[in-house]
Amino acid sequence: MNYKLLNNIKSPADLKKLSLEEMNKLSAEVREALFNRLTKIGGHFGPNFGMVEMTIALHYVFDSPKDQIVFDVAHQTYTHKMLTGRAQAYTDDEHFRDVCGFTNPVESEHDMFYIGHTSTSISLATGLAKGRDLAGGKGNVIAVIGDGSLSGGEALEGLDYAGEMKSNLIIIVNDNEQSIAENHGGLYKNLAELRASGGKCQTNLFRAMGLDYRYLEEGNDIASLIKAFKEIKDIDHPTVLHIHTLKGKGYPLAEKNKENWHWAAPFDRETGERKFKGSGESYNSIFADYMLEKIKKDNKVVVVTAAVPGAVGLTQDVREKMGDNYVDVGIAEEQATAMCSGIAKNGGKPVFVTNATFAQRIYDQVTQDVSLNKSAVTIQLHSTSIFGMGDATHIGISAIGIFANIPGLTYLCPTNKEEYLAMLEWSLEQKERPVIIAVPCDGVNKAQYPVEKDFGKIKYQTCEKGERLAILALGDFFSIGKKASDYASEKLGKKVTLVNPRFASGVDTKLLDQLCKNHDVFVTLEDGIVEGGFGQKIASYLGRKNVKVLNYGFEKKFYDGIPAQKALEEARITPELIWEDILSIQK
Amino acid sequence: MNYKLLNNIKSPADLKKLSLEEMNKLSAEVREALFNRLTKIGGHFGPNFGMVEMTIALHYVFDSPKDQIVFDVAHQTYTHKMLTGRAQAYTDDEHFRDVCGFTNPVESEHDMFYIGHTSTSISLATGLAKGRDLAGGKGNVIAVIGDGSLSGGEALEGLDYAGEMKSNLIIIVNDNEQSIAENHGGLYKNLAELRASGGKCQTNLFRAMGLDYRYLEEGNDIASLIKAFKEIKDIDHPTVLHIHTLKGKGYPLAEKNKENWHWAAPFDRETGERKFKGSGESYNSIFADYMLEKIKKDNKVVVVTAAVPGAVGLTQDVREKMGDNYVDVGIAEEQATAMCSGIAKNGGKPVFVTNATFAQRIYDQVTQDVSLNKSAVTIQLHSTSIFGMGDATHIGISAIGIFANIPGLTYLCPTNKEEYLAMLEWSLEQKERPVIIAVPCDGVNKAQYPVEKDFGKIKYQTCEKGERLAILALGDFFSIGKKASDYASEKLGKKVTLVNPRFASGVDTKLLDQLCKNHDVFVTLEDGIVEGGFGQKIASYLGRKNVKVLNYGFEKKFYDGIPAQKALEEARITPELIWEDILSIQK
Repeated sequence: MNYKLLNNIKSPADLKKLSLEEMNKLSAEVREALFNRLTKIGGHFGPNFGMVEMTIALHYVFDSPKDQIVFDVAHQTYTHKMLTGRAQAYTDDEHFRDVCGFTNPVESEHDMFYIGHTSTSISLATGLAKGRDLAGGKGNVIAVIGDGSLSGGEALEGLDYAGEMKSNLIIIVNDNEQSIAENHGGLYKNLAELRASGGKCQTNLFRAMGLDYRYLEEGNDIASLIKAFKEIKDIDHPTVLHIHTLKGKGYPLAEKNKENWHWAAPFDRETGERKFKGSGESYNSIFADYMLEKIKKDNKVVVVTAAVPGAVGLTQDVREKMGDNYVDVGIAEEQATAMCSGIAKNGGKPVFVTNATFAQRIYDQVTQDVSLNKSAVTIQLHSTSIFGMGDATHIGISAIGIFANIPGLTYLCPTNKEEYLAMLEWSLEQKERPVIIAVPCDGVNKAQYPVEKDFGKIKYQTCEKGERLAILALGDFFSIGKKASDYASEKLGKKVTLVNPRFASGVDTKLLDQLCKNHDVFVTLEDGIVEGGFGQKIASYLGRKNVKVLNYGFEKKFYDGIPAQKALEEARITPELIWEDILSIQK
Repeated sequence: MNYKLLNNIKSPADLKKLSLEEMNKLSAEVREALFNRLTKIGGHFGPNFGMVEMTIALHYVFDSPKDQIVFDVAHQTYTHKMLTGRAQAYTDDEHFRDVCGFTNPVESEHDMFYIGHTSTSISLATGLAKGRDLAGGKGNVIAVIGDGSLSGGEALEGLDYAGEMKSNLIIIVNDNEQSIAENHGGLYKNLAELRASGGKCQTNLFRAMGLDYRYLEEGNDIASLIKAFKEIKDIDHPTVLHIHTLKGKGYPLAEKNKENWHWAAPFDRETGERKFKGSGESYNSIFADYMLEKIKKDNKVVVVTAAVPGAVGLTQDVREKMGDNYVDVGIAEEQATAMCSGIAKNGGKPVFVTNATFAQRIYDQVTQDVSLNKSAVTIQLHSTSIFGMGDATHIGISAIGIFANIPGLTYLCPTNKEEYLAMLEWSLEQKERPVIIAVPCDGVNKAQYPVEKDFGKIKYQTCEKGERLAILALGDFFSIGKKASDYASEKLGKKVTLVNPRFASGVDTKLLDQLCKNHDVFVTLEDGIVEGGFGQKIASYLGRKNVKVLNYGFEKKFYDGIPAQKALEEARITPELIWEDILSIQK
């Protein structure tokens, strides 16, 4: 491929020299570059294909970084990256790893924030505007929000507050008719009305929030976009520009099946076929199969998601089979959580399934709306792990520290498939408390030890009974714990103890007291940050005993694209290094 | 006072027998009962005086608990409590303590949830409706939302999702023209337009969220309310009824100064004078004085609140003096936090001041929008303490566990006035990181030891140098630590070590290593839940050393109206009990 125009764009200043015709050609080159990267290493497809023209027009009209653009969701910024000196990361396979999947100020002065969660842009932009005004600065502040972000509480709070501001603030709503799956929530009905009426219908969410409003239908036409942007540049009050774009624009398969092409694994451009097929069982399929059976037998069971059903295995056909027993609230985790509490109050059996990183938004709702009210809500967390973790924007290893310290909540860490299903079944059938289940991230293991059915009381499982050394290995670090205990047993010449704690939310004091009689050293292993985590509860309880404790887990830092194996070695979580540490303990 | 009618109302069924005339008389009796309680022990004044008629009409028309009413803010429910068998708690001084300040299912089957945080009702109600529908139940589900709750992210997410539901769900917006202080945010402009036009203006937030809408102007007229409620009872789709009420209705002083009378300490009914005057200095006044001076010198400083300015000492006159350097975003903590990150990004020096319990809503924003972006945002937390804590709905002792485990964030716990001011000054002037400052809750103490000026590196302060025993006493538990160390020194016959850790967010490993040389026992004291807290970091670090550690703090449970002294004794946090524990450690 020839990236004739794109190769010459080192910054937005170069873009400004192009004619309209050249910019149209550029958009084709940008799409080629997107194909180059996405067919080979995957990434967010639909959002970026839809934003090509808008991003070109944005950088043509506005003067970044003097004009500050905040993208939301920041996974829509591949074109932005190409136009701000990072095209090579898309055109040249050797440079794919130069950029992350989101905006990041470390990469470029044109990226305002390192951000990957949705619904943040308006609030961040109100702050940029306030900071600018206090410093007597000029320049436009622009929030670009879309792809489902608008339904999140932070975005709606931001929209509301923006309606009270008095100076320049431009909110561009990128309306591609989609969240990650289909859109949910009443406000999307209003967006549809606004699109249908060319922005003229009387009911208008943005005006109701106190904001000025304009509409542009031709969201993939550079000339129209430039005209619209020029009209609002340097405007002296907060204004919404609502733009209709086509998600996946330029690739017919993606235009047609928007959900499937929101994010793409490496694929064949001709056929759209994924290059690598997932093989065998996954917790996604185990969950979907179990829930479909469960719902058949019990109409009170409800599966709830907040806009990422595909990522947790709830594909369209599964959702259709679930019927009224499935609810997607859109990007609105707070709503999902409180709704589950209400469902449980009226006898329902709700399971809210989400990624750990998004669950960070519901600390207060889990505590107050759910746990304080003893609502029997099950929250299934995915990706609570160092395994498969990508950018620091989607960190999942804080989950234990966040949730296992909430009063009244049981936090379960299954170590294998059978145990996972037993915990899920128990959680759905009990009526006393909220339960979090952290789905294992080390693949689907089979049970090697007997599986408990009742998790009503904190009780750890002694899997191997030994002496001197006790290894407490939580959740998906149990397999590492098993290896470490085998290694230590061999080195020590006698069997050491291996415990599956099952609970991250409390201490089995009875077992620990017993173990103290013939054990000198306790090792804890957890797939999470040590501070605030499981192991520190053990260290604290054993603080007054005559034993030593070693807590293994991760440092309190933003792990950013670090491969799991490297992180494990850095944290000394290998059988050999653990044994080395045990030997080095001061006597 | 004669509570002739009120005394005969044991449940809503009794209310239904009354004539309109009698109900009007009843509303006067209810207000008398409110006066009886509030003049003597204080409580939420304005919200309850404004809701008397609406609550009577609600229970007259609907059939609680078959019809389920969720109140939001739940501090508007004093009349509801009187009409559901709990009138004695208002009419009879001996029974004041029978009820808490919010709805609580433990008190009555008419209270759906134990809830005190705002903005939860619509989401909870969508869940009740879903649960009802799955079970094939009947009955109305009613969310009563107002007094500022509408601007919170959870409420807006709920409103949006409600717009997609298909069955009975009634959202009553109690529009009293106020948050806790004045309203903030664009949506309140729309509410004003709607009021002015009798609900007829074209711009309509609720319709924009996909909801049916009705308006009632006469929100303090029982007959009009009954008519309006009858019209929507058993409606088959989600509907908003927007009702205009007068906050503080029935007490001219409160009708006039709504902010001042949102909550009232015990007062004289004739004059409105508070019975007990706060005496002397408080951290509220210290903060206000410092910030006013600071703003004079530096226009980049901004104080941000989310609707509770009065509770943190920012009275109306202080706010006016601060001018553009003060921002109240209304009840919208997520907006406040992300906005601060934007302000800092553009060179501003933001301080977000809030109560710890409300900060629970911003875990994700503090982590992603702020800390991951290294934004120099100061967050000042009030009431992080067992001192002065009331209902479990407003628990503040989880703050360390929530925030001190966030990567990149410095969590400071000053022990006295001078140290507090030094930390605040340092935090505002540094540009590297977010800082949380937990305002001491044990009164204003003077510095007894030298005060550090730089908190850029984790460094604990050794206040008393001794041996054998080291007491690390954090924040407002330093004074207890001092007493415990004096007591232990006397008992031991030699001086023990007393440390002011200053940082809840990390371990001064250098100092601990040093202390290990001539200390056998380490005691940690913190005004917070032990699990996930400060002391467990110490226990974990010392786990491999030849020393014992005792962590003192609180149990992981919902402390509910427990007096601080009782909680301290239960947790064995007294000099004598600590010494007893030290002696009992197994050798």
